[in-house]
Amino acid sequence: MKMSQMFTKTSKNNPADEVSKNAQLLIRAGFVHKEMAGVYDFLPLGKNVLDKIVQIIREEMNKIGGVEMSLTALQNPETWQATNRWDDEVMDVWFKTKLSNGREFGLAPTHEEPITKLMRNFISSYKDLPSYPYQFQTKFRAELRSKSGLMRGREFLMKDLYSFSKDKEQHDEFYEEISKAYLRIFDRLGLGGYTFKTFASGGSFAKFSHEFQTISPVGEDTIYVSHEKGIAINQEVYNDEVLAELGVKKEDLVEEKAVEVGNIFTLGYKFSEALGLKFIDSDEKEKLVFMGSYGIGPSRVMGLIAEHFADDKGLVWPENIAPAKIYLMQIGEDAKELAEEVYNKLTNQGIEVIYDDRNTGAGQKFADSDLMGIPYRLTISSRAIKQGRFELVTRKNGEIEELTIEDIYNKFMK
Amino acid sequence: MKMSQMFTKTSKNNPADEVSKNAQLLIRAGFVHKEMAGVYDFLPLGKNVLDKIVQIIREEMNKIGGVEMSLTALQNPETWQATNRWDDEVMDVWFKTKLSNGREFGLAPTHEEPITKLMRNFISSYKDLPSYPYQFQTKFRAELRSKSGLMRGREFLMKDLYSFSKDKEQHDEFYEEISKAYLRIFDRLGLGGYTFKTFASGGSFAKFSHEFQTISPVGEDTIYVSHEKGIAINQEVYNDEVLAELGVKKEDLVEEKAVEVGNIFTLGYKFSEALGLKFIDSDEKEKLVFMGSYGIGPSRVMGLIAEHFADDKGLVWPENIAPAKIYLMQIGEDAKELAEEVYNKLTNQGIEVIYDDRNTGAGQKFADSDLMGIPYRLTISSRAIKQGRFELVTRKNGEIEELTIEDIYNKFMK
Repeated sequence: MKMSQMFTKTSKNNPADEVSKNAQLLIRAGFVHKEMAGVYDFLPLGKNVLDKIVQIIREEMNKIGGVEMSLTALQNPETWQATNRWDDEVMDVWFKTKLSNGREFGLAPTHEEPITKLMRNFISSYKDLPSYPYQFQTKFRAELRSKSGLMRGREFLMKDLYSFSKDKEQHDEFYEEISKAYLRIFDRLGLGGYTFKTFASGGSFAKFSHEFQTISPVGEDTIYVSHEKGIAINQEVYNDEVLAELGVKKEDLVEEKAVEVGNIFTLGYKFSEALGLKFIDSDEKEKLVFMGSYGIGPSRVMGLIAEHFADDKGLVWPENIAPAKIYLMQIGEDAKELAEEVYNKLTNQGIEVIYDDRNTGAGQKFADSDLMGIPYRLTISSRAIKQGRFELVTRKNGEIEELTIEDIYNKFMK
Repeated sequence: MKMSQMFTKTSKNNPADEVSKNAQLLIRAGFVHKEMAGVYDFLPLGKNVLDKIVQIIREEMNKIGGVEMSLTALQNPETWQATNRWDDEVMDVWFKTKLSNGREFGLAPTHEEPITKLMRNFISSYKDLPSYPYQFQTKFRAELRSKSGLMRGREFLMKDLYSFSKDKEQHDEFYEEISKAYLRIFDRLGLGGYTFKTFASGGSFAKFSHEFQTISPVGEDTIYVSHEKGIAINQEVYNDEVLAELGVKKEDLVEEKAVEVGNIFTLGYKFSEALGLKFIDSDEKEKLVFMGSYGIGPSRVMGLIAEHFADDKGLVWPENIAPAKIYLMQIGEDAKELAEEVYNKLTNQGIEVIYDDRNTGAGQKFADSDLMGIPYRLTISSRAIKQGRFELVTRKNGEIEELTIEDIYNKFMK
């Protein structure tokens, strides 16, 4: 995309009302706009990154049998009264609203109840199981305080998959599958080395649930990492009994601050019982469906990645989710023709390029390229044209290469 | 996709609580699920169709310079008080909600106010104009009655583009461009011959606005169509003065019932003035930005298309937006191997196929194929294998061809 077509601009100053680093950087770089605390618009560059995160998650969910659909935000009180989660005392993040005739609705903070009710239409036999519907959907949560930028929103995107199994055995098999899929996702998002499957409290049904925690100095959680086993334990279940059960020793664990980037829950019969989701098994007996739920917040993950990799010049996107691979700078009028040619040739090959074709000084262009965090910066200047060698800088480590145009094509057009 | 992997099922009976034909059919065929009046989940087949409609609109918006972003549902009262549209007496479709501390929010029924305010960050000079941000976003409208299925939702998807121009001349040029883009969209959606650019009341600023109206017996609007000129006039501005201005005669117009599928508005300075969106022009004078807004509801259009083309057997999707091109039926165990082979070969070529691999009678499969409205039905049966010729039926006209497997590959793999 050409900068002249993009309607956003970068800003030198941090927004006065924003305390979180991810939001400060994303706002300054023109990726998001703050409507109010915890409520962010996604501008073209930000939407591009978010879409790429969504697509990686989608591919991994489809690979393990996930089927995509989309539930609604508006919710019926009756559906949630069945599990006693309509009450604000029980679930304190409800945004509730109503029609002028007084009929009340809620805005879904999660979707266990409606999906369980929906599946009553489609599950009647063991042959209908297992089933793995999922969605990317906007959740609403009435958080009183919301100061962590994209990492704790009042309105945010969520991938939620629900598993419906005929028994615990069928469930456990999928639970292992999706654990692996989650690790593949965080790997592809560039968080591989920092993200651990973490044992956490299981709630009323299971002994453990599992979180995926990314080590980060801004983390609000404390975890204990076993690098040897590639797992971690949340502080909330960090005790001798659990250590013994997992076969790890205190002295091998490293205490870290971490951010929760995903979670997977065994729900068991909690929702199927309350909402009457049953099936006839092969033994002709009627049984309750065994459920699980599995979340990742793409916008939260985007906030974490922004914050995690940033340096003092700005954002640094992993290549897989960067809004473009190359930031193409043109310096000087006589460099325009070649810059256009390179831009067209690369984009025609499907390589995403941000072409800074503005009549702006080189300093501004360098600064914007760094702030936006595009993986490679290519400079086409009159001097470089004379020399036949062009500067290509890698954002994440500042490495500089002097390449011919031919070299550049060879490097990116694989 | 294999039917055995899809979690939805068709139903023989019309849902008892649903009066609109589009929702009845879409529910029976397993495309959508009704949460409550005007609030529908999109199940995998329905989401597939909706995504295709969205993609066609996106391509046409990008072609004319649109840049995609995504605004929020939650709205700040202050933003809307500036135009006096926060008041329920002025805008009666607000869903309003609040935090436990009393702080009030609204759920956006449209987005003129927040986009105008947002653009104050990015528009300061005539060089920043024109600009055409757009989004696909969920709108919320607190309609008291909602009985038209997907055609009038309380929660529904909307494409809204906003134009920001330096003057009326720049605006008018784009207004013509997007009018043409809209006609291309409805053409690609299969509504070409039935959809007319329709002159309607312009509101406070412009003489006319334009609606895109599709002729349909279920339409709630009355329009007068000039087939010769390819335009129509809404009843609300159907008078001698307008007829004279448009150069059409009463006797050349045909009265029709129609459904509004899109609209385009010249907004002028209404929002830029109220919210202070100004720029410095080339003459160094400060001026207000000239605005327009342009809507299409993809879910509404989907409802209309469902209803418009349906026959007594069920849905009939235009090829461009059908959830699959081919409904592949396998009849008899010994047809399984070839059916699998054909399924794999077609899907590997990127052709979408619904493969009915269920252990169900042929009658059920025929009925489901018709109800779902897939453009072609291909039957692989033991009898056909013996004869070397396979029945391919075109859904929309019932045309039957007897083809070899080679013929079938040639027909679909272009």
